[in-house]
Amino acid sequence: MSEKIYVGVDIGGTAIKVGICNENGDLLQTYEGPTETDKGTDAILNNIAAYVRHIVSESPFQWEQVEGVGIGIAGFLDIPNGIMKFAPNLGLRNVPVRDRVQEALGKPVFINNDANVAALGEAWAGAGKGVSDCVCYTLGTGVGGGIIIDGKIVQGFAGMAGELGHMAIVPDLEAIQCGCGKMGCLETVSSATGIIKMAKDAVERGDRTSLTAVENIMAKDVFDAAKAGDEVAARIVNRAAFYLGKSMATVAIVLNPQRFIIGGGVSKAGDFLFDQIRDVFRKFTPDLIQEGVEIVPAQLGNNAGIVGAAGLVLRS
Amino acid sequence: MSEKIYVGVDIGGTAIKVGICNENGDLLQTYEGPTETDKGTDAILNNIAAYVRHIVSESPFQWEQVEGVGIGIAGFLDIPNGIMKFAPNLGLRNVPVRDRVQEALGKPVFINNDANVAALGEAWAGAGKGVSDCVCYTLGTGVGGGIIIDGKIVQGFAGMAGELGHMAIVPDLEAIQCGCGKMGCLETVSSATGIIKMAKDAVERGDRTSLTAVENIMAKDVFDAAKAGDEVAARIVNRAAFYLGKSMATVAIVLNPQRFIIGGGVSKAGDFLFDQIRDVFRKFTPDLIQEGVEIVPAQLGNNAGIVGAAGLVLRS
Repeated sequence: MSEKIYVGVDIGGTAIKVGICNENGDLLQTYEGPTETDKGTDAILNNIAAYVRHIVSESPFQWEQVEGVGIGIAGFLDIPNGIMKFAPNLGLRNVPVRDRVQEALGKPVFINNDANVAALGEAWAGAGKGVSDCVCYTLGTGVGGGIIIDGKIVQGFAGMAGELGHMAIVPDLEAIQCGCGKMGCLETVSSATGIIKMAKDAVERGDRTSLTAVENIMAKDVFDAAKAGDEVAARIVNRAAFYLGKSMATVAIVLNPQRFIIGGGVSKAGDFLFDQIRDVFRKFTPDLIQEGVEIVPAQLGNNAGIVGAAGLVLRS
Repeated sequence: MSEKIYVGVDIGGTAIKVGICNENGDLLQTYEGPTETDKGTDAILNNIAAYVRHIVSESPFQWEQVEGVGIGIAGFLDIPNGIMKFAPNLGLRNVPVRDRVQEALGKPVFINNDANVAALGEAWAGAGKGVSDCVCYTLGTGVGGGIIIDGKIVQGFAGMAGELGHMAIVPDLEAIQCGCGKMGCLETVSSATGIIKMAKDAVERGDRTSLTAVENIMAKDVFDAAKAGDEVAARIVNRAAFYLGKSMATVAIVLNPQRFIIGGGVSKAGDFLFDQIRDVFRKFTPDLIQEGVEIVPAQLGNNAGIVGAAGLVLRS
């Protein structure tokens, strides 16, 4: 009974999810409670501690077996000091989250941002298990990223490493402005938002496409139309895949990781999307740098955040 | 007298340079002897060991103070096993260099490729001193690179990380083929070779430029002409700087390093070149990722290899 356990906490705007992992990253138990953002900072911090104590008390494990607690959270973090500088969706400002939870629990606490934590989860116990260097892309509303080298998150000087959605990858002539203010970012073409925009533009232009009949176009509609043979939709998917593959070729030159892991809603399009990405990656990457390198789907789904948070305890 | 010392070895085709560093990376003493490539593998390995013993015997230090020996070498290395798979300029094939030198000296030996080692030298004791995340560019015949994260070399899955000269950065319409077989690599425009080619092309096209009068154009001639107001030469320098700055913007998105260090012959053009690179970097990098980030010249010159090799002992 001396097995060590690792508790992961994934803090969202409405719910706090907690989970217990063993040293292999197997998720043994989960629990979820309300964040209660409206009740303020103290309530949120008390809830984190309460849910961690609760899940352990309901598990077959003893409190003494808890080796540490990891927290994944969205917002601008001062990671070395464990301070949340600003979390818009939680209303937190300059809160020493790490130290406050550590005091409440009497266990070592680690904190990192949600995208990095999800990447660590996949690298530790998901699609990157056993691989020391992985790069993760999350294709959702935007394009998120996380970089794992030697099994650990690459943080960057200002904690901004892995912002892969903002690689300026679309050539000037075709580039549109990104929400970040720069031109031609990857997420302007390869996120769900980018795919939907390209589809709506095509419909407005009067292109011959079955998407004209769709009321409120979603990324899935574009993939379904492309798979059914719609040429306009196929071109849009191809463009999203092209810039993803090209960005991976660039990342491969810089870091030569063994595995690229793609998660998020858009990645559910499966091999139809992945095969196109792989083709582009092969075309643009020097042979010695693509040998043995794989582009694979994420495996943990929404649990990547909890698992990765637990992984912070071992991989920090 | 219990100070520890670190011996660095820089193996070139004609000479083996060795140096003694203290724990701060200060280069205290150097020695250089012939490689004797023509005498074969055993002679080269014997020379390495002999020169290391020699420099220590001539120094004020005792053999017992040698903490370890690091080796930088050009070629295809199996770094985890310390085996030189193929070094074209030394004629080595499948030689367990690390273990053989370790046996000969009875000290821990570390080995890595020359570009990575030079980057480590600059990061440890040169232009990146005190900074944990640096990216180095070497602008010479090609464009070399080396990436240091948390003070250590990023190796990559196949030991190919940091091949920055082969980032596909020139857009398709303007791209030419690189020696690596791919199109539009950074080194086709930003290496000395690339700059010379652009200059020769301009002369052949009949562009109005003072370079027409130069017999055998070197990169320095192009910079001199550009500084003197030659518009054609200025455009060439601007293009070399543009793609360097753009590639740094991309690397910044991926890794968010604190410092970019540029060395090699072309970097001697100084602020005339650096200011243009900085402008492009500022333009293409999101604000949060460029804050506090510097682009600076390398400081150690040809000693980067020896110093970085010594650094392998502490930073492996």
